[in-house]
Amino acid sequence: MSASLAKLVMCRCDELGTVTEEPGCLTRTFASPAMRRANKLVGSWMRKAGLQVREDAAFNLLGRWKSDRRGAKTFLLSSHLDTVRDAGKYDGPLGVLVAIAAAQSLRERGVRLPFNLEVVGFSDEEGVRYQTAYLGSRAFAGTLLGADLVRIEEKQIVKARRNRNEFLGYAEVHIEQGPVLEEENLPVGVVTAIAGQSRLRVEFRGVAGHAGTVPMNLRHDALACAAEFVLSVEAGAKKQSSLVATVGQILATPGASNVIPAQVILTLDVRHQSNSRRLAAVRSLHAKAKAIAERRGLRVVWTSVQETAAVKCDKALTQIFSASVARQRLKVLKLPSGAGHDAAAISEICPVAMLFVRCKGGVSHNPAESVKTGDVACSIFVLADFIQTLAKRYA
Amino acid sequence: MSASLAKLVMCRCDELGTVTEEPGCLTRTFASPAMRRANKLVGSWMRKAGLQVREDAAFNLLGRWKSDRRGAKTFLLSSHLDTVRDAGKYDGPLGVLVAIAAAQSLRERGVRLPFNLEVVGFSDEEGVRYQTAYLGSRAFAGTLLGADLVRIEEKQIVKARRNRNEFLGYAEVHIEQGPVLEEENLPVGVVTAIAGQSRLRVEFRGVAGHAGTVPMNLRHDALACAAEFVLSVEAGAKKQSSLVATVGQILATPGASNVIPAQVILTLDVRHQSNSRRLAAVRSLHAKAKAIAERRGLRVVWTSVQETAAVKCDKALTQIFSASVARQRLKVLKLPSGAGHDAAAISEICPVAMLFVRCKGGVSHNPAESVKTGDVACSIFVLADFIQTLAKRYA
Repeated sequence: MSASLAKLVMCRCDELGTVTEEPGCLTRTFASPAMRRANKLVGSWMRKAGLQVREDAAFNLLGRWKSDRRGAKTFLLSSHLDTVRDAGKYDGPLGVLVAIAAAQSLRERGVRLPFNLEVVGFSDEEGVRYQTAYLGSRAFAGTLLGADLVRIEEKQIVKARRNRNEFLGYAEVHIEQGPVLEEENLPVGVVTAIAGQSRLRVEFRGVAGHAGTVPMNLRHDALACAAEFVLSVEAGAKKQSSLVATVGQILATPGASNVIPAQVILTLDVRHQSNSRRLAAVRSLHAKAKAIAERRGLRVVWTSVQETAAVKCDKALTQIFSASVARQRLKVLKLPSGAGHDAAAISEICPVAMLFVRCKGGVSHNPAESVKTGDVACSIFVLADFIQTLAKRYA
Repeated sequence: MSASLAKLVMCRCDELGTVTEEPGCLTRTFASPAMRRANKLVGSWMRKAGLQVREDAAFNLLGRWKSDRRGAKTFLLSSHLDTVRDAGKYDGPLGVLVAIAAAQSLRERGVRLPFNLEVVGFSDEEGVRYQTAYLGSRAFAGTLLGADLVRIEEKQIVKARRNRNEFLGYAEVHIEQGPVLEEENLPVGVVTAIAGQSRLRVEFRGVAGHAGTVPMNLRHDALACAAEFVLSVEAGAKKQSSLVATVGQILATPGASNVIPAQVILTLDVRHQSNSRRLAAVRSLHAKAKAIAERRGLRVVWTSVQETAAVKCDKALTQIFSASVARQRLKVLKLPSGAGHDAAAISEICPVAMLFVRCKGGVSHNPAESVKTGDVACSIFVLADFIQTLAKRYA
C-alpha cells in the first residue's frame, strides 16, 4: 500500500511543483496567490484522506483527523508549502504530502487514534518574502517578535497562535538536503538535532602593494592571510565530529591582478548540534585568525552576525522513529540536521522529531532536487508506523 | 649644486603635477591637451638647461644637447610624462626632470660630451588611453605592431621611429615603486633587469553544497582548494630569490554565506628577472594546482593570459651606474624591477640601464607617492657622474 501511496505522493509533488508565481520555474512565497492556490490543491488532497481542512490566519493549511476520545490532545505532522526562488519540488511539500499519505494509510486500515492528528502545511519556512524565516510555524507557536510584525503587511498572522497545552508532539519528514544518506545507501535517517549556527564576518586588513615590486618577505598580503584562515577553518571542522564550518563568500580588494590585496572580507558559517561545541569552535577559530594575522603583520576584525541555538529532537519520539525504521529492516542512521526546519520553531511549544529522506546528490534549493519513489514509500511506512506506535503508547 | 638642482626638480614635479586633464587629481594620458601643456612646460625647462627642443610624431618630447664631435652618436636619458588616473607626481616625470637637471649640471660645469645627449619625455608608458603600454617608446623604437595601430587614432605616430644605429645607449631614472630601498635605508639602487611576467587565470571547479548539511569529508569546496593554492603560490615564491607571485583577484561562486563554493576563479601574476626561472615557477605552480585539485576531487582550468619576457640591463652601463653610486659612498644595491618601464621598449634598439630612487612606503600609482629631496639630489649626482664616466670612455 505504501508503494501506491508513494506513487501518488510523487504525482502530487509534480502537480504542486507547477503551482508557482514565476512562469518557467517554481517559486511560491508566503501569502502569494500561488500559495493560496497550493493550499486549495493540498486541501483537496487532505479532504480525500479524510481530514477536516481549514486555513489559519497565517495562511498555514491545517488538516485535522479528530480523535473519538474526549479531551484528546493533538499530535502534529508537518512541513512547509512555501519554496525558495527557482526551487525543487520536494523541499517542504514532500513532508506535507507524506504526512497526508500516512494519515490516509492509517484511516484506510481502520486505525483509531487516542489523539487528534493534525497535518500542517506551514506557509513560510524559507523566508523569501520578508527575509525572516518560519513566519508560519512561529505564528502557530505564538513566538513571533515585534520586529517580525513591523516588517510584514499581514499583521493578522498573530491570530494563528495555538494553545501549547493542546500538543503532544510534532513529527516532520523532510528531504535531507545533504549527501549523508546517499553516501550510506539508506532511504531514510533519524534526525537527532537541528544544529545551531554562528554566522560571522571576518575582515583581514593588510597593505596593498605592486605585485611586481614588493618582495615576498615585505608583503602583508590580506588574501594569503585569508587563505591560511580558510584552511584552518576547514582543518578545525574536520577534527571535530559533526562540526561543519564554511567560508562561502570572499571579497579581496582592491582586486586587481597586479596589486597585492590590502583587504579581504569573508563570511564564516559554523554549525553543530551542541551549542557549547559550536561556540568553542568559533572561539578557537577567532584565536587562530588573530594568530595568523599577527604573525603576518595584519589586523583582523571579527564580527558576529547571527547566533542561532541548536534544537534537540525529543529522545522518546526519536526512539520511536528509530524503532519504526528498524522494523523496515534498515540500518538506523542518526544524523543532525545542518539546515533549519519548522521543527525548530515548534520545539518551543512541544517535543519534536524529524525523519530525513535521501535526496539525489544531497541537492536542494534547486530544480534538480530529486527523490526516489521507493524512499518515499519507506518514509510513508515509517511515519504511519511511528503514529501507530504512539497510539499504542497513549492507548 | 645637486642640492639646489634637486630642490628645483622637486618644485618642477609639483608644478607638473598640476597639469592634468581631471580637476582635483592628476591624470595625464597620451595625446591629451594636458600632455600638450606638459610638453610645453617641460620643453621650457629643457631650453633653460641648454637643450634643443622638439616634439616627435608620437608626442614624445625631445631635448637634445648636440656634441661638437662630427658623426657623434647619441645617448638617451629618458622616462615618461604620462600618468595613470589619479596619479602621484613622480612616477615618470621625476626621471625626465632628473635627466634635465643632470644635463644642466654638466653644462654649467662646462663639460663637453663626445656623444649627443638626448633627454626624452615619452608620451605613453602607462597605457591608460588605449590599454596598450609603451606607445611613446615603441613608436620611438619602431616596434609598434599592426594591432596597436588598429586601436589608436593617431596613426602618424609611426613616423616617430628613429634609426637604431644612432644610439649608444639609454639610461632611465625612476622611482622604485617598491619598498626595498626604504627597507635598506638607501636613496638609490641599480636595476639589474626588468622582470618578465606571466599572467594567468586559474579556475577551480568543485561542487556546491549546503553549508549546514554536507559533512566536511564529503565536500569538494572550491574555495578551500583555492586557499591551499594561494598558500602554495606564496610558499613557492618565498623559496626562490627575487621571484614574486601574487593572487590579486579572487571570485568564489555562488558566493553565498551558507553555500559551499562550487567555483573559484583567481588571477596569478608571476615575475622574475630570469625567463627560465619564471617559466619553471609557473610550471611548478601548475603542477601544484593540479595535485591540490586532484587530491580534493576538483578540476583545475589553467589559462595563460599574457607572457612578457624579461629585459636584462646592460652589464657595462649598469657597472658604470654602480661605480657612480659607490662614489657617493653608498652601498651599491642591485635589484630587479618588478614593474615594466620604457627601458624595456628601448632595449630593442640599444643597451639600457636604470637607476631607482627610493619612494616613501614603496607607494606608487597613488597621490601619496613621495620622494625625498636628498634622494633626488643623489640621483642627479649619480646620473651626471654616469654621463661623465661614459664621456671619458668614449673620449
